[in-house]
Amino acid sequence: MGLEIERKFLVNHVKWATVEKPNAEFYRQGYLLTDPNKTIRVRATDTKGFMTIKGKSEGATRAEFEYEIPKEEAIQLLDMFAVSDLTKYRYKILFAEKLWEVDVFLGENEGLIVAEIELSSEDELFELPDWAAEEVTGEKKYYNSNLSTLPFSKW
Amino acid sequence: MGLEIERKFLVNHVKWATVEKPNAEFYRQGYLLTDPNKTIRVRATDTKGFMTIKGKSEGATRAEFEYEIPKEEAIQLLDMFAVSDLTKYRYKILFAEKLWEVDVFLGENEGLIVAEIELSSEDELFELPDWAAEEVTGEKKYYNSNLSTLPFSKW
Repeated sequence: MGLEIERKFLVNHVKWATVEKPNAEFYRQGYLLTDPNKTIRVRATDTKGFMTIKGKSEGATRAEFEYEIPKEEAIQLLDMFAVSDLTKYRYKILFAEKLWEVDVFLGENEGLIVAEIELSSEDELFELPDWAAEEVTGEKKYYNSNLSTLPFSKW
Repeated sequence: MGLEIERKFLVNHVKWATVEKPNAEFYRQGYLLTDPNKTIRVRATDTKGFMTIKGKSEGATRAEFEYEIPKEEAIQLLDMFAVSDLTKYRYKILFAEKLWEVDVFLGENEGLIVAEIELSSEDELFELPDWAAEEVTGEKKYYNSNLSTLPFSKW
């Protein structure tokens, strides 16, 4: 079991537009199960597939089990079994020696851009990029599992 | 995606007692999700772990996706997330050039012994060992996912 400790911030769209970006990867992900205590996520990226089981969040922390699977099988699992799904572009940005993952959501979540930083402890210090705006760590409506069932455009 | 095509038989306990057996493996398995259209099973054997997603059965056939995972993580997943589980000894028996898997159930399913043969097509011919009794392919109460929630001792 791994522990996922991450903090999440909305992104200022105007400032984000001026950031020099690497190529994004296209992610399609869906959920075989979402309940308050666990989610089972299947993700297909441009080249890979993953199955990820996450436990309940406590603060910025939750249990995470992640397994790489063939991309083609990830797509089959999504087509056959996902109860909900979403798509996004993911940018990986190195800022002040930390990796930020910025998700530009698509489809019914278009208009939403969220940045995450993965930490090794809840109190780890890090520098905030100027394009990072309000913190939304722990706000349930921003969980990807919830965005897949109640997308941003329907808030 | 693989297709699992298997037929299932009850086992005659008296005849089974006289069969020369290899060592059995102890299996603990549980379900993160069981619904009529899919099951997500986690299994820990003596040495390995597996996560397996199965679709709905059509006759003797169903879709199956299986991934090997670390045994320790299989046990953690079972402890943290399984909604139901069961234990059994599994014997692998070669009979007339076919592999039979014989499950001797434990715990609340003690007293139940079921043999399965995996086939490459629904109409594949095979020889039936004399310890194989009534066929129960497709009988839902014998699905392991159902045995984990409504065990044999409560029938």
